[in-house]
Amino acid sequence: MAEPEWESLEQCLEKHLPPTDLREVKRLLYGKETRKLDLPSQALECAAEGDFELQGYAFEAAEEQLRGPRTVRVGLVQNRIPLPAEAPVAKQVSALHRRIEAIVEVAAMCGVNIICFQEAWTMPFAFCTREKLPWTEFAESAEDGPTTRFCQKPLAAAVSLSASESDCGRPCTEVVSHTGEEAQHGGGLPHPGAGRSARGRAVEHGRRHLQLRRRPGQDQEEPHPQSGRLQRATAFVFQSTYYMEGNLGHPVFQTQFGRIAVNICYGRHHPLNWFMYSVNGADIIFNPSATIGALSESMWPIEARNAAIANHCFTCAINRVGKEHFPHEFTSGDGKKAHKDFGYFYGSSYVAAPDSSRTPGLSRTRDGLLVAELNLNLCRQVNDVWNFKMTGRYDMYARELAEAVQPDYRPHIVRE
Amino acid sequence: MAEPEWESLEQCLEKHLPPTDLREVKRLLYGKETRKLDLPSQALECAAEGDFELQGYAFEAAEEQLRGPRTVRVGLVQNRIPLPAEAPVAKQVSALHRRIEAIVEVAAMCGVNIICFQEAWTMPFAFCTREKLPWTEFAESAEDGPTTRFCQKPLAAAVSLSASESDCGRPCTEVVSHTGEEAQHGGGLPHPGAGRSARGRAVEHGRRHLQLRRRPGQDQEEPHPQSGRLQRATAFVFQSTYYMEGNLGHPVFQTQFGRIAVNICYGRHHPLNWFMYSVNGADIIFNPSATIGALSESMWPIEARNAAIANHCFTCAINRVGKEHFPHEFTSGDGKKAHKDFGYFYGSSYVAAPDSSRTPGLSRTRDGLLVAELNLNLCRQVNDVWNFKMTGRYDMYARELAEAVQPDYRPHIVRE
Repeated sequence: MAEPEWESLEQCLEKHLPPTDLREVKRLLYGKETRKLDLPSQALECAAEGDFELQGYAFEAAEEQLRGPRTVRVGLVQNRIPLPAEAPVAKQVSALHRRIEAIVEVAAMCGVNIICFQEAWTMPFAFCTREKLPWTEFAESAEDGPTTRFCQKPLAAAVSLSASESDCGRPCTEVVSHTGEEAQHGGGLPHPGAGRSARGRAVEHGRRHLQLRRRPGQDQEEPHPQSGRLQRATAFVFQSTYYMEGNLGHPVFQTQFGRIAVNICYGRHHPLNWFMYSVNGADIIFNPSATIGALSESMWPIEARNAAIANHCFTCAINRVGKEHFPHEFTSGDGKKAHKDFGYFYGSSYVAAPDSSRTPGLSRTRDGLLVAELNLNLCRQVNDVWNFKMTGRYDMYARELAEAVQPDYRPHIVRE
Repeated sequence: MAEPEWESLEQCLEKHLPPTDLREVKRLLYGKETRKLDLPSQALECAAEGDFELQGYAFEAAEEQLRGPRTVRVGLVQNRIPLPAEAPVAKQVSALHRRIEAIVEVAAMCGVNIICFQEAWTMPFAFCTREKLPWTEFAESAEDGPTTRFCQKPLAAAVSLSASESDCGRPCTEVVSHTGEEAQHGGGLPHPGAGRSARGRAVEHGRRHLQLRRRPGQDQEEPHPQSGRLQRATAFVFQSTYYMEGNLGHPVFQTQFGRIAVNICYGRHHPLNWFMYSVNGADIIFNPSATIGALSESMWPIEARNAAIANHCFTCAINRVGKEHFPHEFTSGDGKKAHKDFGYFYGSSYVAAPDSSRTPGLSRTRDGLLVAELNLNLCRQVNDVWNFKMTGRYDMYARELAEAVQPDYRPHIVRE
């Protein structure tokens, strides 16, 4: 396996390949070239000072007669945990808030409209340990926990302040934030007995597929401190316990920037998750993840990208970075000795488009912000060329699948 | 777009990258390394003489206590049309039979158990022209047309003759052959009025998803000329007209080498096709295709590979090679001028495994045979690690999809 310090596929190819070959290799690997965004110098300076990578690309679409371009800028954030996993819980959360705030400020300078953080971004990815304490303490109230407040107020203000001066001229920002949610007894969670819940053994036990849950209380409107215009911070917090699957189906959220959905982490392995979000009209599907090299690095460039192609939509794949050390040894069910870290989270966040093009990945090793400008018109344009929505035999699949889930299903096998 | 003479991604990377970087790049792009097969020198010589590429790789699985390895060798054949598309129909078919026979003989030397040819291998890919004549004349009777006879007799004999001396020691061979099928009036085809049918406008009109159809008459048993053992040549011929979709669901064929299915060409774009074959138990899904660079080259490495990952099975993606010129100009609905060729078929056939590894691709430019030894135990082993079959919310998808195909379906959209 590549050592952590091996920076990225792109960097390696750019270093060694002659220009004509590089162009061909990139075309084969990444499809039609995405235009590099001209990002503000202030943003580039802040990223350098803050020691995180900043890249920007634009996906373009053909001009149409009746529709103007529908551009939206998304921001994908990948990061290490700034404090060791052994530090006090509150300090870790607060350090993560500060780190993300610095990155979000740069996103704001870049005119980002929708920003998405990595899976379980307010904590180490401690679920691999299968321990409960202190990890369950990272779960927060989705109504008014510190992270919900963080997403609603200072963060949204930072973004809208700068975004109003950006190219896009739209001061509002959507925040896609995935954290553990504190369950309330009798509060409507499917497993109220769980008390405070966090996520984790799901990877081992499957049946995660946590679904996005937006509580009404999280939509707040407040006057913009400078312009007086309305801003709206929408914090998405997920219903999530160790064992419970979601029961909300595949909802899509209509925002002012387009229809978005969130397919969390392991959910990316199931093409039918992406598909159902697409059936419900998603233009952009975010996939906040946490996954390591030994497990999944060669699948990473395939799954979200296939979903963008198959569903005529954009997908945003986000992975965390670095190695996280835990106080107690644990095993990973892979026949190897007990260890104190899960492995190396390889970053490599990217955006994929319906025309099978994609951005390069962020680094395998550094914190980073990937800004991508999407022209959502591309979704319908590609649909008009390839017609997957028209040609899908959905009635047949529905019938076959309904049969296949019956306990007495006999697979359709033709024997010699 | 890469010129036809640009041979392959692999060749370019091997030429320019230092060994350590090459190893990392290959790991990221192709996953766990596949072992190079030690192919017989006679086979390599014949391939060189016959001017086609020959490559061989093995996918390995962990040893188990209760099951021995379940190895099967598949052969993927990609080729140009040997005669111009303007040559007389019978001569073209016969030249293709001869070309394929030469390649199949080499496959036999390599111990191939299941061989699959490219989509519509007995003809130029003339459907892009939207003309009927003479292309519909390439359609054949699935009962006793020349290609069915070709697949059943000389070809099977050639394979079994040599295969009996190979590593595998199993003289029998399955042939996956896709051709146009001659419809018979009242013969049970869904569109009996079509008379003789060929395939083609389907790409433009969608709703292809032609399903595999095996007629009972095609299974023949006859004594092996030398060993006296039984051999069995199974010719798969597809029900296919210009416009009709298949009505056979997603059957899987139990062969002595494992359970196989065929997802034809455009069917690869629909994850649910692969999925339904997998639900019915397929170990290996073949995807005989015909597709050109401008249209699909950056999707090619993604789709079949994602299907292998998502469904814990092997997939075999086969594309034809070269440019085919037609007598009359036609347009492709892409805003470009009328032309006499569809574009450049880029070959690049490959096999993908459930653990997200894959073989390198065959050349973009040359006829070729890719031999891959699959240990089918890998399917269950990967399933046991990732558990996609266990964690799929199939009951939920079935319910959601059944709702979604209703004419009055209202997408699940949460509005602000």
